[in-house]
Amino acid sequence: MRLTTIRLDGGTYAGRVTGDRVILLPFRDVGELLASGPDWQERAAGAAAPTVSLAEVEFAPLTPRPEKIICVGVNYADHIAEVGLPTPEHLTIFAKYSRSLIGPYDDILLPPQSHAVDWEVELGVVIGSPVRHADAEQALAAVAGYTVVNDVTMRDWQLRTSQFLQGKTFEASTPVGPFLVTPDEVDHARDLDMTCAVDDSVVQKSTTAAMLFPVGEIISYVSSIITLVPGDLIATGTPAGIGAARKPPVFLSAGQTLRTAIAGLGEQANRCVGSTAA
Amino acid sequence: MRLTTIRLDGGTYAGRVTGDRVILLPFRDVGELLASGPDWQERAAGAAAPTVSLAEVEFAPLTPRPEKIICVGVNYADHIAEVGLPTPEHLTIFAKYSRSLIGPYDDILLPPQSHAVDWEVELGVVIGSPVRHADAEQALAAVAGYTVVNDVTMRDWQLRTSQFLQGKTFEASTPVGPFLVTPDEVDHARDLDMTCAVDDSVVQKSTTAAMLFPVGEIISYVSSIITLVPGDLIATGTPAGIGAARKPPVFLSAGQTLRTAIAGLGEQANRCVGSTAA
Repeated sequence: MRLTTIRLDGGTYAGRVTGDRVILLPFRDVGELLASGPDWQERAAGAAAPTVSLAEVEFAPLTPRPEKIICVGVNYADHIAEVGLPTPEHLTIFAKYSRSLIGPYDDILLPPQSHAVDWEVELGVVIGSPVRHADAEQALAAVAGYTVVNDVTMRDWQLRTSQFLQGKTFEASTPVGPFLVTPDEVDHARDLDMTCAVDDSVVQKSTTAAMLFPVGEIISYVSSIITLVPGDLIATGTPAGIGAARKPPVFLSAGQTLRTAIAGLGEQANRCVGSTAA
Repeated sequence: MRLTTIRLDGGTYAGRVTGDRVILLPFRDVGELLASGPDWQERAAGAAAPTVSLAEVEFAPLTPRPEKIICVGVNYADHIAEVGLPTPEHLTIFAKYSRSLIGPYDDILLPPQSHAVDWEVELGVVIGSPVRHADAEQALAAVAGYTVVNDVTMRDWQLRTSQFLQGKTFEASTPVGPFLVTPDEVDHARDLDMTCAVDDSVVQKSTTAAMLFPVGEIISYVSSIITLVPGDLIATGTPAGIGAARKPPVFLSAGQTLRTAIAGLGEQANRCVGSTAA
């Protein structure tokens, strides 16, 4: 099953994608659908409701207001090498606030106070049922589905202090979506090609199979700390190829388009607007 | 004005404290009251509603579900000295998830997987109106009021990786409340004595006047990154005296009571239960 959140008539709606149509569901977004109870899949599958053309929809952030956005750091060996860190013993996590999320085709605002807006293609995991103190297998059973995230980072602000948060949570900077794809359709996203391009230049190319801590272990670890709930979004880390690690470093400029894709999950294209790096 | 969130009849209610009574308000909690619109003070002041005895109420987390919980690190010179860091040029911020909040008299669960549960008395700031790109004066005008937070920290988990989040957001670990005190009553909390004690032993003693980055600057800085909204909670950093910096280090054990107080704002007393440090 393939779900989405679209903008329509001044609001947003959850929808189920069937062929070239989106069937509207009686929920404001995919997060609200998932929070509606353990039988959300029946509610998503069953509706005989108005439909709109997939080609004409405007996508909203897939989950606009997750209770938690959990970002994983240093989770691909080639990225760990490019930033010069040792292989981690424990999972590194940090947060993002929901107001930083945007739709998969929305503009990315380059804020005037940053001169280093960078890209990070990441597999996104959306939680479908509450999970606490789970082992890796139980953890996977709590996944509603997978999506595409670009953990766009104001690199200069990320590295101002020891804590990444301020460079990770700029207003309206992080595209998420367009689809939530249920685990059965993509074998739990165990081995999906992922790419990030700036205009026509591919800057990141890897596979989700290269993650050090795979999805089940990530959820299991976090669930030992705090309860994950339906709609929670996990960004699972980025592979090599970030702009800051290039020689010389390269960052996003106004007018460029950031293109982010994971095979089987979907594509994003975000135009960069506003101020630009020098 | 002094507001609170209490548990009653299986739910929670916002209330206004008058003398030894709490006047019930038609909102589930203080966060919901603040989110009800710019004239929340009128709605809080005007109700002629049932009252309950302040002495008998059970306090809930003051703001159970803030959109954001923003924690400030290394914001007191004596604490910066005890952890051996240089004076920061920029504000350090990290997050906590709302599910980590508890009421000001709730038990603190000592999780079996941590052997270093530590204390951090902090001034809490609750936002009352949306604020974005504000200078320090505009920022202060957006404050709904002040409260007490103990940023209880699983120190071993905080220091497992470079990012503090996992040691700061254990389920049901962070007391907040009991009161939101409006700025007019406490001169914007510019100089309030703050203490933290474990049973009868005072372990932290300072004043909010010792903050490196005062409240207006903190809000101004964060508002340059992202919009703050009513109900958002900021924990403004802790002074010296944490358990981890003692020689030898000292952490919380089951059976102890953590007592946290800020003059003019209120007191907390949280019994520690569950597993204990060796």
